[in-house]
Amino acid sequence: MMNETLKVKGMSCGHCVNAVESSVSKLQGVSLVKVDLNQGEVAVEFDDGKTSITEIHETIKEQGYEVV
Amino acid sequence: MMNETLKVKGMSCGHCVNAVESSVSKLQGVSLVKVDLNQGEVAVEFDDGKTSITEIHETIKEQGYEVV
Repeated sequence: MMNETLKVKGMSCGHCVNAVESSVSKLQGVSLVKVDLNQGEVAVEFDDGKTSITEIHETIKEQGYEVV
Repeated sequence: MMNETLKVKGMSCGHCVNAVESSVSKLQGVSLVKVDLNQGEVAVEFDDGKTSITEIHETIKEQGYEVV
């Protein structure tokens, strides 16, 4: 199990939190996603045999946010 | 037909625009809703025999925003 905390730009409200958390949590192998709106951070716990940090980045970008 | 432009606080992103536009446009008698995110404004065209400015305010508040 891997834990990563990503810096993400552009999340501004509760809808953004939901968009990121719900899309990332749907990826196979993701066991936890938690957005910290004030810090602009997304903490993810995942099985890197089932998904990858690249796929997680792509999913967040598809929702309209920038992973920095 | 009435036209009103409301000052609304707390709308920060495209999700907020959708939340306000879709909820207000569902009210009976509302023929147009347009959010200007930069100006923090919501323009509404409505038939005041079918809805009221009070009901429009309430609907926006229910979505989590402040009508000022």
